[in-house]
Amino acid sequence: MTDGLTAIYPGTFDPVTNGHLDIIERAARHVARLVVAVSQNPSKTPLFSLEERIALAKEVTASIEHVEVDSFDGLLVEYAGRKGAKVLIKGLRAVSDFEYEMQMAQMNVRLAEVETLFMVASPRHSFLSSSLVKEVARLGGDVEGLVPPEVARRMKERFRGD
Amino acid sequence: MTDGLTAIYPGTFDPVTNGHLDIIERAARHVARLVVAVSQNPSKTPLFSLEERIALAKEVTASIEHVEVDSFDGLLVEYAGRKGAKVLIKGLRAVSDFEYEMQMAQMNVRLAEVETLFMVASPRHSFLSSSLVKEVARLGGDVEGLVPPEVARRMKERFRGD
Amino acid sequence: MTDGLTAIYPGTFDPVTNGHLDIIERAARHVARLVVAVSQNPSKTPLFSLEERIALAKEVTASIEHVEVDSFDGLLVEYAGRKGAKVLIKGLRAVSDFEYEMQMAQMNVRLAEVETLFMVASPRHSFLSSSLVKEVARLGGDVEGLVPPEVARRMKERFRGD
Amino acid sequence: MTDGLTAIYPGTFDPVTNGHLDIIERAARHVARLVVAVSQNPSKTPLFSLEERIALAKEVTASIEHVEVDSFDGLLVEYAGRKGAKVLIKGLRAVSDFEYEMQMAQMNVRLAEVETLFMVASPRHSFLSSSLVKEVARLGGDVEGLVPPEVARRMKERFRGD
Amino acid sequence: MTDGLTAIYPGTFDPVTNGHLDIIERAARHVARLVVAVSQNPSKTPLFSLEERIALAKEVTASIEHVEVDSFDGLLVEYAGRKGAKVLIKGLRAVSDFEYEMQMAQMNVRLAEVETLFMVASPRHSFLSSSLVKEVARLGGDVEGLVPPEVARRMKERFRGD
Amino acid sequence: MTDGLTAIYPGTFDPVTNGHLDIIERAARHVARLVVAVSQNPSKTPLFSLEERIALAKEVTASIEHVEVDSFDGLLVEYAGRKGAKVLIKGLRAVSDFEYEMQMAQMNVRLAEVETLFMVASPRHSFLSSSLVKEVARLGGDVEGLVPPEVARRMKERFRGD
Repeated sequence: MTDGLTAIYPGTFDPVTNGHLDIIERAARHVARLVVAVSQNPSKTPLFSLEERIALAKEVTASIEHVEVDSFDGLLVEYAGRKGAKVLIKGLRAVSDFEYEMQMAQMNVRLAEVETLFMVASPRHSFLSSSLVKEVARLGGDVEGLVPPEVARRMKERFRGD
Repeated sequence: MTDGLTAIYPGTFDPVTNGHLDIIERAARHVARLVVAVSQNPSKTPLFSLEERIALAKEVTASIEHVEVDSFDGLLVEYAGRKGAKVLIKGLRAVSDFEYEMQMAQMNVRLAEVETLFMVASPRHSFLSSSLVKEVARLGGDVEGLVPPEVARRMKERFRGD
Repeated sequence: MTDGLTAIYPGTFDPVTNGHLDIIERAARHVARLVVAVSQNPSKTPLFSLEERIALAKEVTASIEHVEVDSFDGLLVEYAGRKGAKVLIKGLRAVSDFEYEMQMAQMNVRLAEVETLFMVASPRHSFLSSSLVKEVARLGGDVEGLVPPEVARRMKERFRGD
Repeated sequence: MTDGLTAIYPGTFDPVTNGHLDIIERAARHVARLVVAVSQNPSKTPLFSLEERIALAKEVTASIEHVEVDSFDGLLVEYAGRKGAKVLIKGLRAVSDFEYEMQMAQMNVRLAEVETLFMVASPRHSFLSSSLVKEVARLGGDVEGLVPPEVARRMKERFRGD
Repeated sequence: MTDGLTAIYPGTFDPVTNGHLDIIERAARHVARLVVAVSQNPSKTPLFSLEERIALAKEVTASIEHVEVDSFDGLLVEYAGRKGAKVLIKGLRAVSDFEYEMQMAQMNVRLAEVETLFMVASPRHSFLSSSLVKEVARLGGDVEGLVPPEVARRMKERFRGD
Repeated sequence: MTDGLTAIYPGTFDPVTNGHLDIIERAARHVARLVVAVSQNPSKTPLFSLEERIALAKEVTASIEHVEVDSFDGLLVEYAGRKGAKVLIKGLRAVSDFEYEMQMAQMNVRLAEVETLFMVASPRHSFLSSSLVKEVARLGGDVEGLVPPEVARRMKERFRGD
């Protein structure tokens, strides 16, 4: 390996939070190419459509070098193969994240020798998750500082029914 | 970043196990240079001297490309800086590993913007640790398959008092 | 602060168990006023209606000093503000409880400087949860000793279809 | 107790995996009679019907001595009583398994003095679960080595819509 | 397997607590022979000598059928082999117990196909450990109800310097 | 209870960190009197003497209302009794903290009906511990922002050998 790493940062990003953005910024410093890969088919009904989630992710990562936003469907390791990536990036906040992610990582090595590199969330984001942010916004709470400003604006619209 | 990553894989390696070797082999595929950094001053009395630990680590990684073995003393992030590395590699086996390592990783970002990339142990090594292997060897148990053959041989000598 | 604490003990209470009651009794000894706050909109369909859950909570806490039962909707920290409470009480049984509750607690400090004080479940209740009790009752198991007698009676009726 | 243990190994087995099979083989060496008890009413819609799940479990355990396959409905401890079993066998893979199972085990002692004996998953199966295997198969991934060959064949058919 | 199980319950038992006694009583109901195996060489200096620990364990288990007390040195799985036991019994109180014990259990299967059957501590003993009990006794706290009466008496003597 | 709570915040405070200070500030808002209780006999050799630890704790908490600093020896619950306190405050950072603290809390209820109220560390301090801070300082790392300025100054002196 001589030309730097291509890595996939997969997720539902419904919506992208400051916690995601922090991982993206930190990971992008160490790889040649970081593909933020928005999952097409979350099992639950998302708040934002795939197109919206991609657009928001693109908007908030526009100024970060080495980052591109894409979407994927099907088996993540096959998608990684198509992108020429042998490495996934995942953020870890908590022990409960860790166990599930450890199982997935071991499965992905087994399925296709795709490695997962875990980065720990910055302390100031360790309590952040898309679902918690949505719950706060749904109940009318203030999500500024938890998500990028553009995302906060869009969530406010969405929950006001615009 | 365009030329690939320099990463540090730090530890006491008293002695290097098949679990360490697995992380080294997997990490080395994705970085331009992997420095296996043997810690000089473990708080407990080690079974093998620093020189022995380095020699064993060199021997078992001799055939793996991109890997070099070194030792360090003092603050790990300062050592990383001297080696031109902005990234540490750590293996995770279990939840209890994770919490301590998460604290260290957050501290290392804070001290010197050095990132830690965590890889999960292969399932077949998830129950392995240097201290457990030493305990087994000390009691006369068979450590083949747990450590490289050369290390097994040296442990047997050590516990027989050679 | 000179006149004692007002604290909120929030939950779905579907239904109130002996584990809840134990936390209520222990917390009530240390605060001037403990508001048992029954959540109006659980995401899942509850076994008991809000009115029933409030009535049962009132009934089983009637003899405990400093305790009142109320219900709330919307953001918990805003409700706390309306009640003049700066403190929430939560019971912890297990590690998995802890991580989620830790995220919520950090979010609530951030949203409104509302603190969460955690109390650990008494050992004899550490395996108790409303959902486990409902599962046992649904399958015809005996829930006496797990919930107050009046609650046990109501669950029996409910699962017999009365 | 003089004639050996009758133990129940309960689960949904949707479908039986190599992880289940490993626990069954290891447990069967130590008990006089191991009843693999397929749960009739999983809360989620299963991939395979109860009959299919029983048939697959019978097929893959046919050659293991002391093992029989049965199904049950209702309270597990009552079923155990009807089978003359005072002991359940459960496999543990991870911390998150452990906490839930610990609560259930303490409840089952309380309800009917039925004990749970936990065995740890073999390292090579520690990342395996029926739901992860189904997810991989649904997305077209290869599940050989994760489930017995006959189960792999049936999953392939199912997800192709046969 | 037709004649019932021989199982080893290993530990330092410095001293035996009501938590140990609970596991012994519950395990002894399900096996033909339960060997309480007192470890000769704890890494720390014990409060009670090996002889004292054995004597106390014998005294408090004297009336429990199928139980014998023994001591061992060296590799536990080799001791189990000498006793004709293929099974260890361990009690689990908490997640932190679990991870270490899971590693040991996987190691013991690997070393000698010796299985570990885990039982969960009764809720009323889940906060009990020999070291916590010793700490309480050392500081003059009351350990009745935490250890058998004879053990409480001996601890009081020991910490008074008798 | 009508006059507000007296609470004990116990610890070794070797030395007091910004994480401790954060808990003290947040707790002091909700109680009538918060006693920061410095433990006399840590099992390990402390970096700072009891007198130094008390002096530093007093210095950094001097401007916080309702707070006093004291030291204690022996059983914590008996000390609490002598201070007229029925409540302990503890900070929780991580799951590993939690399990040990949960055992202690259940023991303290049992010994003397002294309750423990847990507060979660602020995210920005969740990776902080006295021992990690000492390790960083010992190796010449910068601890500003991790401990109060006066403590940082004293640690620098200590590790330079002043």
